[in-house]
Parts: sequence; structure tokens; C-alpha cells
Amino acid sequence: MFDKQTQSARATQFRQQHLGTRLLILPNIWDALGARLMEKLGYPSVATASVATALTNGFLDGEHIPFDRLLEIVRTIASSVQLPLTVDMERGFAQDNIQQLQENILLLIEHGAIGINIEDSRPDHKSLFPVSEQCRKIEAVREMSLRCGVPLVINARTDVFLTGSETNALEEGIVRGQAYKAAGADCIYPVTISSYESISRFVGEVGMPVNVLLMKSIPDLKRLKEIGVARVSLGPNLLSHVLATMKEIAEGLIHENSSAFFNRELPSREFRDSLV
Amino acid sequence: MFDKQTQSARATQFRQQHLGTRLLILPNIWDALGARLMEKLGYPSVATASVATALTNGFLDGEHIPFDRLLEIVRTIASSVQLPLTVDMERGFAQDNIQQLQENILLLIEHGAIGINIEDSRPDHKSLFPVSEQCRKIEAVREMSLRCGVPLVINARTDVFLTGSETNALEEGIVRGQAYKAAGADCIYPVTISSYESISRFVGEVGMPVNVLLMKSIPDLKRLKEIGVARVSLGPNLLSHVLATMKEIAEGLIHENSSAFFNRELPSREFRDSLV
Repeated sequence: MFDKQTQSARATQFRQQHLGTRLLILPNIWDALGARLMEKLGYPSVATASVATALTNGFLDGEHIPFDRLLEIVRTIASSVQLPLTVDMERGFAQDNIQQLQENILLLIEHGAIGINIEDSRPDHKSLFPVSEQCRKIEAVREMSLRCGVPLVINARTDVFLTGSETNALEEGIVRGQAYKAAGADCIYPVTISSYESISRFVGEVGMPVNVLLMKSIPDLKRLKEIGVARVSLGPNLLSHVLATMKEIAEGLIHENSSAFFNRELPSREFRDSLV
Repeated sequence: MFDKQTQSARATQFRQQHLGTRLLILPNIWDALGARLMEKLGYPSVATASVATALTNGFLDGEHIPFDRLLEIVRTIASSVQLPLTVDMERGFAQDNIQQLQENILLLIEHGAIGINIEDSRPDHKSLFPVSEQCRKIEAVREMSLRCGVPLVINARTDVFLTGSETNALEEGIVRGQAYKAAGADCIYPVTISSYESISRFVGEVGMPVNVLLMKSIPDLKRLKEIGVARVSLGPNLLSHVLATMKEIAEGLIHENSSAFFNRELPSREFRDSLV
């Protein structure tokens, strides 16, 4: 199923989506149906969220899902849509082994991914890998991308805001963004950055496309675009909405109350089937 | 992973759930997370819906999903919960070949199913297989269940209400229910039966547990229990709720409007992680 030309075209298309006048909003889905829904609604690309691909298959987030299961999910999603697909691969499922990381990148591309998220904190998200170590990983990813002829879009996630205070994090994040860019990253993702002011400063200093996680403290998409954000992710929160819906309905029904089940207009069978 | 004792115990447990004082409400899920959610909320068993397992994997309903993909889904769900799992296998994925049907039953049991839905209409749902032919299939399923020592719960779906008018359908459905019972079915499922009166008459005549699909015209679970319904399914409608939620949020975001995304309290990370 691997077709280098198609993959390269999608990778290029996706890279350009970071540079357009339209804010790139990435709906983080986890299965073929979600991907098809986003394609139908007009999204230009789709992304997975590691929490979502893990939990829906019965695993905790944190590289607990076997990598070959993740590859099967990637194949299923990628072959269901015409859109570029970027995959959240956490730390790379490689136990910090560079050769394993490169093999995994090759496999991801062969299964249909044209972009990845790779993060710089240790498994507990309480400390960061040294900059140099993370740069070595990003360089290795870029090298494999060049070697197999698909210009993979590397979104370097920095977990400085998960591990530090907002001020230190901002300085550290900028340093890391610049280093990751030099190592070959296309986009920097300071996950959980939480104020417009910090984002504005960050965008000004890193000189590369910036991805932010959509959060309650920064809900205004137009403003995010204005201050220079290139890309917005939903992280695990689309799945959380789905869980909230299922929970509400199921809690009603188990108490023999069907009101939540009947309280809304459901998509027609025709709409549902149009997604396949 | 096949453990005959566990499977048999779950099959027996599930059969008894049709006979208790509590109405058996089956939440039709399609992945491990949905199954875990239902277990956590206190449901005594889980079911798949063929529409949901098909669409979430990029296939139309109607046995388009490869059977081995369905088996993988069954394995993932069954190994994620302690609950009995019943699987919607449409017409059996066997092109009316009895030997193939039996092999599929064995595989389903080996992958963790302890119950099935098997339906009696042709692929277009516009006509029914002759009663005798459907009975041969049910007998073959029962025979395989006995042969492998797991008392599979057979839910015989009759599509009389999909193919005929309500009055004729009721008569025909009763005839079929009685025949399917004699052939070895445990439960009869006149899908889309749509009035309390018809259900009441149906329950009175078939002399076996009756499954109904929860529909707008018959929304009252307490009344369904009172008139003798044993089991209520949601069919594809839990998935439709999920689709409605995802669609609403995604339609907002693509127009740079995050209000639907932020309009509700989401389950906590702790709750989410407790489902694995």
C-alpha cells in the first residue's frame, strides 16, 4: 500500500497547511470513522492523539499499546481518507534507541503517516531529556525521512510547560524550539502553553510554525491566528467529549431513563453511510 | 486466550440475565474503551452492533468488514472486560454455507464471544430467508456451541418488521420465533418492532425471551419491562450519538468557533484512565 508519490504529495500539502492564511485546526481522531467525518466536514488533514489510540484499544497512554497495534490503526485511518495523516508517537516507542526510532519512522511512513508528534519529556512527564539528546532523535527522524524520500512533517513537542513553571518554561521552550528547528523539526508544540501573552512571545522568538493545544484559557481561535499560531490541536479532548456523551446516555439507561438517549436529533443513516 | 471455563461461566451468566427481575439493557459498543465504560457504570454485559464495528473501521454494514478484522475487535473487547460479550454477526459471514458458519462460531467463541445475533433477511434486508433455512443455520450454531462446550446465547434476529407491514410482520414474527426457539435459539429479536401493543402480543405468543430495539415510539423502559420484554438493545444509536457530538464540535471549530468544544464539563483524566 505504500506509494511514495502519494505520501510525498500529502506531506508537502500538510507542510504548506502550516503556512497558509487559514489557521490549521487538527481534529485528533482515533479511528477510520472519525477521520472520514473530518474529511467530509472539510478539514484539510487529520491527526491522532496518543491518549485516544491507546484508550480505545484498552491501553493506558504512555507507549503501552504495542507499536504494531498502533501501525494497524495508522494503516486503517490512512487508507480511509485522502487527507494527510499525522501520528502522535509519544517518545517514539524506541526506548531512546536511535536505530529503533528510525525503524519505527520508516514503518509509520509505510503505513501511511506523513507527519509525527515526538515529545521531549521522560515517561512520567516530570523531567525533560537533555536538549542535545532530543535533537539527536529529531535529526535521526529527519535523516530517515530523507532516506525514504517522504518529507515527513516533524512536530517537535516540548513538555516544558508540563514540567516547569510558566516563566522558566517559556525561556526553556524558546531555546528548545530553536534547537529543534536546527535539528530538522518543522513545527514546535509547547503543549499546555496557557496564555495568549506567552504564546505571542513564543511565536516571536522561535521563528517556526507553532502548534498549541486548545485550552479553556486560550479558547479564541481567531485571536490565536492573529498572534501567529500556525496549528491548533485538540489533544485527547475530542475523545473526552465522546466519553461524556456515552456516559450521560448510559447512566440514564441503566436507571431505566431514556431521556438523554432521545434528547437530540441523530445523524441519519444516509449521513452515517456517506462516511464510508 | 480461550478458556472454556470462563467462557462457559460468562455464557451462563448472560443467559440468566435474560430471566432476572431487572430489564437487561445492552449497550452496543464497538471498542475496548466503550466496553470498559459500561463495565464501570455497572452494566452486566456488553454487545457490539454490526454497524458500529463496521463503520468505525471504515466499512459499510452488511458483512463488508473482513471477518478476521471482526475477530480482532472481539478479542480486544473481550480481553478488556470481565463481562459477557455478545457479538452481532449479521448473517454469519458465511455466504449461507453451514460449515463456514460453524467455523465462524468456533472462531468467535475462541476470540471471547459468549453470545451472537444472527439475522434472517437477505443482504438487502428486503426479503427473508425461508424459515427452514434459517432454522438450519440456528441448529448448526447450537450444534457447534455444544461441540465446543460453551453454551452460546443465540439471539435470533427476525427482520419481519424491516421487510413487511406491521400486521403481517407480527404473525410471521411469531411463527419464526417459535421455529427459531425449537431450532435452539435463546432469545428472539424482532428488530424495529415499534409499538407496545405489538410487543405485548409478541411476548405472549413466542414463549421465550424477547429483545427489542429501543426506539422513539417505545421509549419507556419500565413499560417494556412490565409487558415482558427481557432485553433491550441500542443498535447503532450509541454510535450515532457519538457522531452527533463529534460533528457538532468539529463543525464549530472549522469555523473558528470553539463554543461547543468548551460548553460542557469533560470527564477528568483520572476517570478516563480508570477505564483501562
